[in-house]
Amino acid sequence: MILHSNFFTQGEIGPVSVINPDGASDLILVCEHASNGMPSNFNNLGLNDEVLVSHAAWDPGALAVAKILSHDLDATLIYQNYSRLIYDCNRPPDAAGAMPLKSEIYDIPGNLNLSEAERFARTSALYVPFHDEISELIQERRLAGRNVVVATVHSFTPIYHGQQREVEIGILHDTDSRIADEMIANAVGHEWRVERNEPYGPADGVTHTLRLHALPLGLRNVMIEVRNDLVADEAGERKVANFLYELLNKSLAA
Amino acid sequence: MILHSNFFTQGEIGPVSVINPDGASDLILVCEHASNGMPSNFNNLGLNDEVLVSHAAWDPGALAVAKILSHDLDATLIYQNYSRLIYDCNRPPDAAGAMPLKSEIYDIPGNLNLSEAERFARTSALYVPFHDEISELIQERRLAGRNVVVATVHSFTPIYHGQQREVEIGILHDTDSRIADEMIANAVGHEWRVERNEPYGPADGVTHTLRLHALPLGLRNVMIEVRNDLVADEAGERKVANFLYELLNKSLAA
Repeated sequence: MILHSNFFTQGEIGPVSVINPDGASDLILVCEHASNGMPSNFNNLGLNDEVLVSHAAWDPGALAVAKILSHDLDATLIYQNYSRLIYDCNRPPDAAGAMPLKSEIYDIPGNLNLSEAERFARTSALYVPFHDEISELIQERRLAGRNVVVATVHSFTPIYHGQQREVEIGILHDTDSRIADEMIANAVGHEWRVERNEPYGPADGVTHTLRLHALPLGLRNVMIEVRNDLVADEAGERKVANFLYELLNKSLAA
Repeated sequence: MILHSNFFTQGEIGPVSVINPDGASDLILVCEHASNGMPSNFNNLGLNDEVLVSHAAWDPGALAVAKILSHDLDATLIYQNYSRLIYDCNRPPDAAGAMPLKSEIYDIPGNLNLSEAERFARTSALYVPFHDEISELIQERRLAGRNVVVATVHSFTPIYHGQQREVEIGILHDTDSRIADEMIANAVGHEWRVERNEPYGPADGVTHTLRLHALPLGLRNVMIEVRNDLVADEAGERKVANFLYELLNKSLAA
């Protein structure tokens, strides 16, 4: 049983990484599903390598794209160092998906019958420090009189429950569509199929990070979903990042 | 809207207090409902003074009794500095009672329609640091080779939903009744009516703190409930503390 006391082993990386903390851009990039890493005591939740490298455990390619954007836009990037199968930082603790029993077609043995103590340990070790870090950065920027825009960067699997997905880039928003509207307008005519609130939308509970950090403060925000076959290699990551760079740059300036 | 960024105002006390941190006793006392305090930005959740001083907001007398026990037993005491109506630290974040819409007969206006951001702020500011503190103390003691016993100290209202409660001291337990059994056996013949798992029991979700910190580690534990009319003044607090001191002392030695 993994509790607060044996969650991490000595020398293991903490839950949150911050790249370019002093970035000059108004934009703060967030990557909740950046990593498929698991603290060693978790024994990979009983999963085999096929699941561990799949989209069930993380958003393949999302961190790579976010890092390029962070560099090119001079934007701070905050990302989670552990798998969403331990705790999905884009879900509140009362959501079934926070510590999922199943992800698409995969059962997650290590998430069966979690006790209150196990749920607390994950919430305390991964979820709260991650969102505290984002909150504190936003607060610091606002106190310094800076504008803040929040963009979360995700990827999705091309085939889900056996169905091919045609959308290639999803531009998602909750009640505030300002950035999304601009990005979608600027994407017209591009070779890629860019869709609003696809393959998920706010009704699927995927805008938790935006609801935590952007909507209550009236900050412009967007959630970006990239089909992961587009970012399966470095050339793809660069191409997608360049496209998103243009869209974000124009939208931020608007 | 109270978020992470405006939860506390400068100079306000933090969520957790620790008394007698180096206590020699194996016992760690915990008081989740010690205080009816509210961070000033919360405007008392829209409640009037009648509710704020009532058992709805805290466990009157519990902290006073716990402080005497901490002194007399040389035991560390950890307690929460804010009202359970902001966050009930004896409930997990997925429990309806964590940020209750209603407490007995009182509606709690400031808890209506809480957003994900408001729920996160309370979980992050009050619940997680409270239980992290308990976890860390227990871990430190165990690493030092010390035994640990956990006792939570509560009070309950004599009249609930119009019904008089006859029980005066409740000795509650979850699946591990070792301390409770001893205490109940030692209370036989006392003038006060001492009952097992009254006026609540584990099915009411009241053993969350025990489930977090004691049960997973096999630590002996108990939850104590004192009818609050017994501890309405200093003489009562002292009398109840003396009684519990005897019960706890004998049980710890057993």
